[in-house]
Amino acid sequence: MGSARARIAIDAMGGDHAPAEIVAGALRAREELDVEVLLVGDSSQIEAALGQQANSFPIEIVPSEGTIEMHEEPLSGIKRKPKASINVAMDLVKQKRADAVVSAGHSGAAMAAALLRLGRLKGIDRPAIGAVLPTILADKSVLLLDVGANVDCRPKFLEQFAVMGSIYSQYVLGVAEPKVGLLNIGEEPGKGNDLAIRTHQMLEQNQKISFVGNAEGRDILSGNFDVVVCDGFAGNVLLKFAEAVGEVMLQILKEELPQGLHGFMGVALLKPNLKRIKQRVDHAEHGGGLLLGVAGICIISHGSSQAPSIFNAIRLAKEAIDHQVLERISSNYHQPAAPAAEVE
Amino acid sequence: MGSARARIAIDAMGGDHAPAEIVAGALRAREELDVEVLLVGDSSQIEAALGQQANSFPIEIVPSEGTIEMHEEPLSGIKRKPKASINVAMDLVKQKRADAVVSAGHSGAAMAAALLRLGRLKGIDRPAIGAVLPTILADKSVLLLDVGANVDCRPKFLEQFAVMGSIYSQYVLGVAEPKVGLLNIGEEPGKGNDLAIRTHQMLEQNQKISFVGNAEGRDILSGNFDVVVCDGFAGNVLLKFAEAVGEVMLQILKEELPQGLHGFMGVALLKPNLKRIKQRVDHAEHGGGLLLGVAGICIISHGSSQAPSIFNAIRLAKEAIDHQVLERISSNYHQPAAPAAEVE
Repeated sequence: MGSARARIAIDAMGGDHAPAEIVAGALRAREELDVEVLLVGDSSQIEAALGQQANSFPIEIVPSEGTIEMHEEPLSGIKRKPKASINVAMDLVKQKRADAVVSAGHSGAAMAAALLRLGRLKGIDRPAIGAVLPTILADKSVLLLDVGANVDCRPKFLEQFAVMGSIYSQYVLGVAEPKVGLLNIGEEPGKGNDLAIRTHQMLEQNQKISFVGNAEGRDILSGNFDVVVCDGFAGNVLLKFAEAVGEVMLQILKEELPQGLHGFMGVALLKPNLKRIKQRVDHAEHGGGLLLGVAGICIISHGSSQAPSIFNAIRLAKEAIDHQVLERISSNYHQPAAPAAEVE
Repeated sequence: MGSARARIAIDAMGGDHAPAEIVAGALRAREELDVEVLLVGDSSQIEAALGQQANSFPIEIVPSEGTIEMHEEPLSGIKRKPKASINVAMDLVKQKRADAVVSAGHSGAAMAAALLRLGRLKGIDRPAIGAVLPTILADKSVLLLDVGANVDCRPKFLEQFAVMGSIYSQYVLGVAEPKVGLLNIGEEPGKGNDLAIRTHQMLEQNQKISFVGNAEGRDILSGNFDVVVCDGFAGNVLLKFAEAVGEVMLQILKEELPQGLHGFMGVALLKPNLKRIKQRVDHAEHGGGLLLGVAGICIISHGSSQAPSIFNAIRLAKEAIDHQVLERISSNYHQPAAPAAEVE
């Protein structure tokens, strides 16, 4: 009791490699980060995955029944299976037995469970999923949101994404003054579809963010933006494309580099460098996306997540807890508006 | 007279490297392909670019005055400068002195000029710009459209893009039965934003195309689709992102591969293989996009085009002429609809 340690509920049954890789990532996080983990899922399967480690380190298992399968319609699945692992994990946050949820399961189901069990933060119309992408600069990443929670958006949703994204970028990703861009098809303010044109005007007038203008497709990875906002349709398409492109490039390298005798020798010499390239490009290194705007911290990891990815996701969750992301988003929308006369 | 040779009007003043690289690409095309080229632009600048070659091979120069600059609003620029190179080039097609236009200038201006001077094909509400991207399969590409002509679309526009894209894929790119996909955020028919859901239904019922379902971001480069349709906002963002990603990857390779002594030696051994990778990834190798749906063949090349890119663009134009793409699109919309009883 009284411990300030972050407690993180892990959906041990969610993802292509559940529970073994999920449990392995959670165990590593418990060892290397200052966190407590609660493994939510089928007790016997989790115990089998824990193996001998279960005895040496007692770890809390919270039993659940079933999961939402990838083909299931999220909302009806969540309602039909109240004891599914993702629901139980969200309940732990609602009951304040945990501070955050990490899941690599059905992302739509995670969002539905978060909305139904935790609800939205005050002032937020629609939660968004943020994804962190690498940029051309080795030490810089960019937060893209929304990447799939809201396919049809209104300008004020994107404005809220911009504010939430700025807070996340500043407090979790450690960017001093996040530069916010609006995904668009040209640099000029009048460019774009109806949504983009109207959103541009709102972002320009928003004093809570540092809006630096439109970000074209080519600018996303330039390192010139810390946060890029867009509707969930464009964002989802881009994110999945980006992930696939990384894989395509690694595939082309694999095919083309070793060709010929020189190629064979060259690749042998380059092994460590190629590994570093894979790390810079591979999305598994980037942990997961945060579901921003719900009344709880939820990290949504890729379905293909293995232990390192889960470890990174737990690290992200801990950062979000330690830096009070939820409180900062809420207080942003609770502050009384400044009287007009004081606004510059 | 009476020659069946394709005559291609080249906007010699359009693009970052005009006129030198444009002229160089055109000269190479005239030598290697069975085409006549008409160079549209400032005579003295073109003659300087032609240099000594002007004397050995007489080549037709069609004088024009000025160009539409990149910062200019396309439609007003096109109207204000009737003798701009892109306008003169389009007029050559209208007057049947040329069969096609190739331009690396302002793409919005090229589209505006085509619309104003040539008009739309019957049955087409909105022209689209198609871009050809490489896929994970070395011998397969994918046509993405629209990549920027129409930022706000209706389902029937996307349906027309699908029909035009299929014809282009079949007759210019040589795909026997092009598989058409709809850009979307999930595989299931009910997924997506309002536009995608309604378009899906129309594409499923269209007998003129081989619709194989939704294409997610990750599927675009999979080689499973020959044509992917989307609104011009998503398409433009994706295309520019794809181009940038190729550059980012090449940059990461450049930074990481030569690290250390082994890296230095490895890269030296891999030079030819790295060059082949660059060719597979580099957008300059892919010539340009076709403006589909206007009453003339117009290839819109990348602003950064150099001679090889212009050469490829002229090759594309010739293919489109030889395979009567315009006639095929038109006849598609002129054929009397089959009586309902005969439709399966």
